[in-house]
Amino acid sequence: MLSETDKKHLRVAYDEAKAGYDEGGCPIGSVLARGDTVVSQGRNQRVQQGDPIAHGEMDALRKAGRQKTYKDTTLYTSLSPCMMCTGTIIQFGIPRVVIGENKTFGGNEDFLRSKGVEVIVADDPDCIALMTRFIEEKPELWNEDIAED
Amino acid sequence: MLSETDKKHLRVAYDEAKAGYDEGGCPIGSVLARGDTVVSQGRNQRVQQGDPIAHGEMDALRKAGRQKTYKDTTLYTSLSPCMMCTGTIIQFGIPRVVIGENKTFGGNEDFLRSKGVEVIVADDPDCIALMTRFIEEKPELWNEDIAED
Repeated sequence: MLSETDKKHLRVAYDEAKAGYDEGGCPIGSVLARGDTVVSQGRNQRVQQGDPIAHGEMDALRKAGRQKTYKDTTLYTSLSPCMMCTGTIIQFGIPRVVIGENKTFGGNEDFLRSKGVEVIVADDPDCIALMTRFIEEKPELWNEDIAED
Repeated sequence: MLSETDKKHLRVAYDEAKAGYDEGGCPIGSVLARGDTVVSQGRNQRVQQGDPIAHGEMDALRKAGRQKTYKDTTLYTSLSPCMMCTGTIIQFGIPRVVIGENKTFGGNEDFLRSKGVEVIVADDPDCIALMTRFIEEKPELWNEDIAED
């Protein structure tokens, strides 16, 4: 279940995604939070920085810098994590992930759960609408970002 | 089996690892290659840039920039990939990974193979010696890099 804190942090992830859309990038945003505190926030930087590893989640984790532990954190992402970001969540020991939506992309939720990660899908209408619009407008960019032909 | 090209590229990955050691960082290096051509080379940047997502493989993939496809590439890494880098290899559709060694760290080789990735372990004495020395000298840094307590 989404708490009020979850809703607030997920909205920041959405705002990052929207900023990415406005920049002409892939509109996926993310927040790393420790309870009520935002540790870092980021967004996909494929277009903006020409960086293929900077998915939203990765950009947030990079901006967080070196952390003593991730065991007390939650990762918020506007879109369901790909295998890169899924592997990173597992490797970093992030115990809880709140996903804006997995209607337009997804599939790694059960793998995360099998590794002990709590996964909550918000089914957020704004997240769904933003990704749907992006995929319609820039299918080549989206396919590049998920390495699909 | 390692080809002569493989041996050459793996040596560049080792040289990157050694340069990381000399900088006081985590000594893990990587090369992305397309046949005989080095597309990019990188090394772990946790200490140097304070960047927790920049494992050797990730740094090489970042430096390669946006690629049309990874299907014709091989990723070389001085050390067996963690779950972040493993997920990235799968997500990017990299079909072949040459690993310097998996004596000091490993465990994701079979998962990579289950996803259709060809995995070759070179058992390289220089790679083993460098990581062994590093882990002995800086166990806290190493544990931080692999998110172990």
